[in-house]
Amino acid sequence: MADDLQKGLDEVLVAESSLSHIDGDAGQLVYHGYDIKDLAREASFEEVLYLLWNDELPERDDLEAFVEDLSAEYTIEEGVVTTLEDLVAADERPMAAVRTAVSMLSASDDEDAEPGDIDAVRHQGLRIAAKFPTILAAYDRLRNGEEPVEPNEELSYAANFLYMLHGEEPDDVAAETFDMALILHADHGLNASTFTSMVVASTLADTYSSVTGGISALSGSLHGGANQDVMEVLLELDESGQDPTEWIAEQIDDGRRIPGWGHRVYNVKDPRAEILTEKSEDLGNASGEKKWYDYAAAIEKYLTEEEDFPSKGLAPNVDFYSGTVYYQLGIPLDMYTPIFAMSRTAGWVGHILEYQSDNRLIRPRARYVGPTDEEFVPIDER
Amino acid sequence: MADDLQKGLDEVLVAESSLSHIDGDAGQLVYHGYDIKDLAREASFEEVLYLLWNDELPERDDLEAFVEDLSAEYTIEEGVVTTLEDLVAADERPMAAVRTAVSMLSASDDEDAEPGDIDAVRHQGLRIAAKFPTILAAYDRLRNGEEPVEPNEELSYAANFLYMLHGEEPDDVAAETFDMALILHADHGLNASTFTSMVVASTLADTYSSVTGGISALSGSLHGGANQDVMEVLLELDESGQDPTEWIAEQIDDGRRIPGWGHRVYNVKDPRAEILTEKSEDLGNASGEKKWYDYAAAIEKYLTEEEDFPSKGLAPNVDFYSGTVYYQLGIPLDMYTPIFAMSRTAGWVGHILEYQSDNRLIRPRARYVGPTDEEFVPIDER
Repeated sequence: MADDLQKGLDEVLVAESSLSHIDGDAGQLVYHGYDIKDLAREASFEEVLYLLWNDELPERDDLEAFVEDLSAEYTIEEGVVTTLEDLVAADERPMAAVRTAVSMLSASDDEDAEPGDIDAVRHQGLRIAAKFPTILAAYDRLRNGEEPVEPNEELSYAANFLYMLHGEEPDDVAAETFDMALILHADHGLNASTFTSMVVASTLADTYSSVTGGISALSGSLHGGANQDVMEVLLELDESGQDPTEWIAEQIDDGRRIPGWGHRVYNVKDPRAEILTEKSEDLGNASGEKKWYDYAAAIEKYLTEEEDFPSKGLAPNVDFYSGTVYYQLGIPLDMYTPIFAMSRTAGWVGHILEYQSDNRLIRPRARYVGPTDEEFVPIDER
Repeated sequence: MADDLQKGLDEVLVAESSLSHIDGDAGQLVYHGYDIKDLAREASFEEVLYLLWNDELPERDDLEAFVEDLSAEYTIEEGVVTTLEDLVAADERPMAAVRTAVSMLSASDDEDAEPGDIDAVRHQGLRIAAKFPTILAAYDRLRNGEEPVEPNEELSYAANFLYMLHGEEPDDVAAETFDMALILHADHGLNASTFTSMVVASTLADTYSSVTGGISALSGSLHGGANQDVMEVLLELDESGQDPTEWIAEQIDDGRRIPGWGHRVYNVKDPRAEILTEKSEDLGNASGEKKWYDYAAAIEKYLTEEEDFPSKGLAPNVDFYSGTVYYQLGIPLDMYTPIFAMSRTAGWVGHILEYQSDNRLIRPRARYVGPTDEEFVPIDER
């Protein structure tokens, strides 16, 4: 067994976890045993954060204390804003700007922490989760030539982000929809970014390092980014002026690959996509402009029913409708992956807490396939 | 097999590699087939960088072109210096400051890159390796209230770092010794930081993200940091005024663990430690102050020969003498791990180049051990 190459580690069990479980055949995702659909519809993102970091849903008092601690950390330091200004001036892309700004958050943390101290993970994770929306909104406002908006501690986590982004309080439909989207993206087993956080944490590095690692991995095109790709497809369809079904039929005939379709672990429609489908329609009904939902639904119908589509049997994944939701919430396309990172910070920190509680350094091996006995020749004799 | 938990991934082969190979019984380390001792004694760090990124040693022309490209990138942008000033003002620790500053380097890179483009990895890796010493030296000077020193493109990579750190050109012994230390730390199989770089790179994230991930992992106390611990032990011994052998005997009697001793993969003296032992002695002879070497040697002799020492049979690892070398080169103790990161950037980029050339997303699994069917109860009914 030790001699088998496990490139990609696809089937390798690297840890035990009670955070989230995916039943790909049933199309079910649970966080610590709770169905994601119940959590999305009935809990707040703050409750889910609490659940992922404490292994249980909070009672009212617990939640109030937690939210107080969280919102007390919303503000970011002036040095972070200055660095964001420098990054915007250099046209830095959003995920890279977030990677740098989150890495900077350790500088303003005055609490000493012993390596591997679980309370320190909790403290650092809370600071990062609290300041992440502030960083992201400030970055977007600065690049639009606008002043960052100070966080409003009275608003929910989701509503406060939209408020800081747009400079005005969101209506209830928008706030609730964004809250749901955050919950749906909070955790999803050991994807590459969560695993990166765990590998970093396994050295007993601090949580700023571990989360910076997670953001670094999520920036890769094989991980984050597909919801932005979906929205670009829908914008192209809109631009064409064609009937959606005719347009998608042409694209498929031309051999085009449609993003947001199919998933390594789900054999049926991704439960997160089910919720987002509803919310995409709700937003359209609320605003009176339903075309983005209609486009996505027409493509889903065509791809699901079309005999010749090579992916027949596959179904939309979480990315297929989240783009239309974010678009209708007025969020710029290149912020979709950073928002994914903002949600997933919940899961990264949860997995770091869980892994460091029973830590073991993660250090695999490579099979050496190079030469073993090269004779060194000085440069001028080569 | 898929059901076995592989926590730590100790014996799991995650990739093939021709970069470095460790023969723990023979005490041999090779980079692409060349013995590390030959490389340390006869090649420059720039040649080793070239070797690790090109799978062959350069001829004179290749090396000159490579060094020209590298030294052309030594300078860091004003925005990075400003951020370092902010970090220093906030008392940020060196590894965290380096993590943030290296992450920022993407902002000044104007070259567009397609995900997974190997030429882009090479370009980005070169920029990071070139600017790393400049960042590190600037950070140290700023915290001492001194102006950063502009890089000198005429000097070797090793000499230029010492020049920027101290504000004066190092003598030949110092420059050659530091060059050797860089070579000895450049690569060492799939340690946790190298593996982190690979996991990030496997998402097709850019090399700024991958190297930021590597730095994040190296900051953990289970990975970097032991050479600083060794030097603190030697300083304590010096402070005691006792005979080294008597002092260490007392410490061992008191059950103290001595850092820099023993290694998971070497059963004999680490070949890197052998070279560093010589260099530590050379530096002492050159300066006329041999006590740091003498202390380390006395401890090595005692621990190697003492019957009752629980680690009998173990031998010094790379960290045991590198501290005495850095100390004699006038490098502050808390810069030892950042310097390790500076050297290891060579290996990180080498492994990223190798892995992305035949990429597969790294995504292991967790064994779910939580509940599966919890009934959601609204918060006020809990």
